[in-house]
Amino acid sequence: MAAPLEFYFDFASPYGYIAAQRIDALAQKHGRSIDWRPMLLGAVFKVAGTQPLTEYPLKGKYSTYDFQRSAREHGIGFRMPSKFPLGTVGACRGTYWLKATDADKAVPFVKAVYKAYFVEDRDISSNEVLADIAADLGVDRAAFLAGIEQPEVKGKLREVTEDAIQNRGVFGSPFIFVDGEPFWGADRLDQIDRWLSRGGW
Amino acid sequence: MAAPLEFYFDFASPYGYIAAQRIDALAQKHGRSIDWRPMLLGAVFKVAGTQPLTEYPLKGKYSTYDFQRSAREHGIGFRMPSKFPLGTVGACRGTYWLKATDADKAVPFVKAVYKAYFVEDRDISSNEVLADIAADLGVDRAAFLAGIEQPEVKGKLREVTEDAIQNRGVFGSPFIFVDGEPFWGADRLDQIDRWLSRGGW
Repeated sequence: MAAPLEFYFDFASPYGYIAAQRIDALAQKHGRSIDWRPMLLGAVFKVAGTQPLTEYPLKGKYSTYDFQRSAREHGIGFRMPSKFPLGTVGACRGTYWLKATDADKAVPFVKAVYKAYFVEDRDISSNEVLADIAADLGVDRAAFLAGIEQPEVKGKLREVTEDAIQNRGVFGSPFIFVDGEPFWGADRLDQIDRWLSRGGW
Repeated sequence: MAAPLEFYFDFASPYGYIAAQRIDALAQKHGRSIDWRPMLLGAVFKVAGTQPLTEYPLKGKYSTYDFQRSAREHGIGFRMPSKFPLGTVGACRGTYWLKATDADKAVPFVKAVYKAYFVEDRDISSNEVLADIAADLGVDRAAFLAGIEQPEVKGKLREVTEDAIQNRGVFGSPFIFVDGEPFWGADRLDQIDRWLSRGGW
């Protein structure tokens, strides 16, 4: 059984969102599953010595334009959120809580949160909004709100983020490992496709 | 007559080098010419608030690995130079002097300088090395060394670099404009190919 694609992303990352719309088809084509690993890019930036793309002179303007253009190329709905970037701790914790308690709903939750943010311009830094999203998937609202406060859920997010930085060399979103091989960026999905087709090079 | 692809690059940029090996085929496929525009990435970094990729924690290690992997995918010779990065003022000036005085030799000079740096590990910050490279193309050595000191040649490089930053929004290397449409990065050549095939999207 081939290893899953390890898909690291931040919920406030436009390129993470774009990759999330395309990675299922890629994985399916090559008979792979996906391990969805939301993490906190803010923590990554501190170690990597970087900041959100949109905050750089020149690069910020290009990036904002390129988010739209890249989404358009692949027929992916996208609009720049009015609140950007924002805190994604609750969204990450919600994902890990679902993974532990109601695993089948974890990926639908990830996709629904991304859609809420990058299509519907909802404030996904709000736990109430996240609970609404979870409830739409049939998750108990109160259980969700209690779940994301559990120490083991908080610890899991810390652990994934720290491991990504310290042991995996993750410095951006999306960041994808294919049998240990690192690929950074939504614009590398085609390269991953070629990598998997050729068995590396 | 379709406009040329405007190809901005820095001579010390590994991804600029990789793009330079692939852009001829891309341009040819779409009946385009290429305007080769070396610039000083150091000046760009000051405005863009960034630094050479290799100097960032985490990203530096990935980049150094990815230079090799990206070159390998396309069968491009590459080795990380022992002196990196280095000054490219002379190489840029040499290109603009040739463009003005012996235009047919400008692109062969660009390619020879890139090869000298990223394949042969020669010190292209040295004007003597650059003069040797030019001489191998049949350029008079003394004329080259005098040419790169001409005020109009120096002015041309300043002008291209400043215009790139101030008016074109260039913040990295390679940076390619297709009919005004900006694309950043060697990993966007396939996207440019699709852009040209579809006439945008």
